[in-house]
Amino acid sequence: MSDDSSSIRFAGAVCPIPLSDYPSVQLAHGGGGRLSQILIEGMFAKTFDNPALEMLHDGAILGVGGSRLAFSTDSFVVSPLFFPGGDIGSLAVHGTVNDLAMCGAKPMALSAGFILEEGMPMEDLWRIVQSLQRAAKEAGVSVVTGDTKVVDKGKGDGIYINTTGLGIIPEGVDITPLKAQVGDKVLVSGEIAVHGIAIMSVREGLEFETQLESDSATLYPLVEKVLAAGGDDVHVLRDPTRGGVASALNEIAEQSKIGFLLDEPSIPLQEEVRGACEILGFDPLYVANEGKCIAIVAAESADKALEAMRSDPLGKEAAIIGEVVDEHHGRVYLRSRVGGMRVVDMLSGEQLPRIC
Amino acid sequence: MSDDSSSIRFAGAVCPIPLSDYPSVQLAHGGGGRLSQILIEGMFAKTFDNPALEMLHDGAILGVGGSRLAFSTDSFVVSPLFFPGGDIGSLAVHGTVNDLAMCGAKPMALSAGFILEEGMPMEDLWRIVQSLQRAAKEAGVSVVTGDTKVVDKGKGDGIYINTTGLGIIPEGVDITPLKAQVGDKVLVSGEIAVHGIAIMSVREGLEFETQLESDSATLYPLVEKVLAAGGDDVHVLRDPTRGGVASALNEIAEQSKIGFLLDEPSIPLQEEVRGACEILGFDPLYVANEGKCIAIVAAESADKALEAMRSDPLGKEAAIIGEVVDEHHGRVYLRSRVGGMRVVDMLSGEQLPRIC
Repeated sequence: MSDDSSSIRFAGAVCPIPLSDYPSVQLAHGGGGRLSQILIEGMFAKTFDNPALEMLHDGAILGVGGSRLAFSTDSFVVSPLFFPGGDIGSLAVHGTVNDLAMCGAKPMALSAGFILEEGMPMEDLWRIVQSLQRAAKEAGVSVVTGDTKVVDKGKGDGIYINTTGLGIIPEGVDITPLKAQVGDKVLVSGEIAVHGIAIMSVREGLEFETQLESDSATLYPLVEKVLAAGGDDVHVLRDPTRGGVASALNEIAEQSKIGFLLDEPSIPLQEEVRGACEILGFDPLYVANEGKCIAIVAAESADKALEAMRSDPLGKEAAIIGEVVDEHHGRVYLRSRVGGMRVVDMLSGEQLPRIC
Repeated sequence: MSDDSSSIRFAGAVCPIPLSDYPSVQLAHGGGGRLSQILIEGMFAKTFDNPALEMLHDGAILGVGGSRLAFSTDSFVVSPLFFPGGDIGSLAVHGTVNDLAMCGAKPMALSAGFILEEGMPMEDLWRIVQSLQRAAKEAGVSVVTGDTKVVDKGKGDGIYINTTGLGIIPEGVDITPLKAQVGDKVLVSGEIAVHGIAIMSVREGLEFETQLESDSATLYPLVEKVLAAGGDDVHVLRDPTRGGVASALNEIAEQSKIGFLLDEPSIPLQEEVRGACEILGFDPLYVANEGKCIAIVAAESADKALEAMRSDPLGKEAAIIGEVVDEHHGRVYLRSRVGGMRVVDMLSGEQLPRIC
């Protein structure tokens, strides 16, 4: 716990992170779990407090001349830079356009900020920039402004990319993490944990019969279909990236003050991913996805929304994996294969560093 | 020069940077001089080519529902993180809101993306976040969305920050680097080269009678006054950051296909900055500013615009430093103190790494 001697005062405000517990930044502060949440809610959200701030949504919603814009930023530090199914360039597009899509917004424009490490092979930069542009084109979005900085050798890791996106929210669409209601169904658009395991299998040198590829992809076309099918009954959208499905649902449970009950056998999971998770000691519920969407939809429209997901090439394996319940508010429970119940808590530490 | 063996083909396109010359990224590729320009124009602008792309302006201009938005991104990698007159937090606000202001836009919202290095003191992060918020408040802009990543120790340098800004361009304002015309006057809003020298004096341990402080500040209030006074006669605005006044004017000269003739004795320069430049071997024309604005204004409105600049607390030392001429198109010339003429070219290499 914090004590007086460990608190910092700065311009009259006291650092909300107890320094005796966390004197310095840890990898887990970027892992998407409990420590990330403490840093974001405790330090950033408290400091930047303002009406438009939506640190817990995937982007901010801004009104401009009668239009509603979604505005979202993401920095990418994935290691390795090239991985099966993508690279840091394509990932930097998918990550940000998906955050816009989770606000219900059609992606419109991207900025790209590059932090290059001195000595990075020019050929790698060229491949990444080409890949970024190809992903942007596929997503129907243009890179309209950019910035390049170079840091000394040993002060970076080849390349870090920030992309910030602008999207337009169509009239009538109103998605927020606060709208989950008792009785709603939880849909996931396909097999989970693929991105994280594709990255880790490269890092750990795991081999599979068929190579596992990241699911990194643009979700807006799928989201558009779900919104067209479900209308107002689509309450919440979220892409379960860092921290996986478990962290995303825990955040929504806390924000909406509801409980989730998941049904383990319904959760789509490839055999190879399951096997890799067992070897690596990961729970797939906490492993990152980069082309999957969670939708929380009123029960009466859940089947229509599921059908809409399945009509999209990225949603063929979509499933209803659980529901919103009026108990254990703020928490996520799972009914396991063998019928037992367990709590799916937020991870405190770091499961997978540098995954996006 | 490039030869076939050194070119890379990727998805049908050939890397436009000759790999025999530049097999890897150099610090100078981020320095704001000729190598930066080759990378930005040769690789990024060619790849991302689209109508809204304004790699050579300070931001992109987007039309949204009848409004014109300016959209600009900047990553900050300054070293040291804390320097006289500011820190990476305040700089990250000033840098981006000033880019918006140079499009004639009133800053409206910022995103903030943090890349933290494992082991960074939490107290430093707290100070930086507080400083960023204070600068945003002073600039009348809110941080509305953010992102945090943590990289392993030795893969960063404490903290890198990307900010991306949105601003609204008031009706009637139309600033572009293409509008400089023969006869226009070149105004600068104050003493040049202060930011770069403040940073370098810390790095090199130089001492002055009074401590030199960075000029890092928000320029929109000054720009608003200049626009109100000069109206349509304000043709171009630019903040001469990396690469200084020389690089900014060279870029405009190339884009507008005009020449500049500067008058050295008219260029505002503090004695201490001049002295430090001599000691360090820098030409102040190439040293970064973070709170200065160049305005290129039709001759008939130049005095009014100058008066408007001087009415702002940041513009007390504003001066007319030269004019647009109908000779040596695409280049910048300087009439020196002793009456000689010299060309002020773009620097090829790196003068000051990690200055912003």
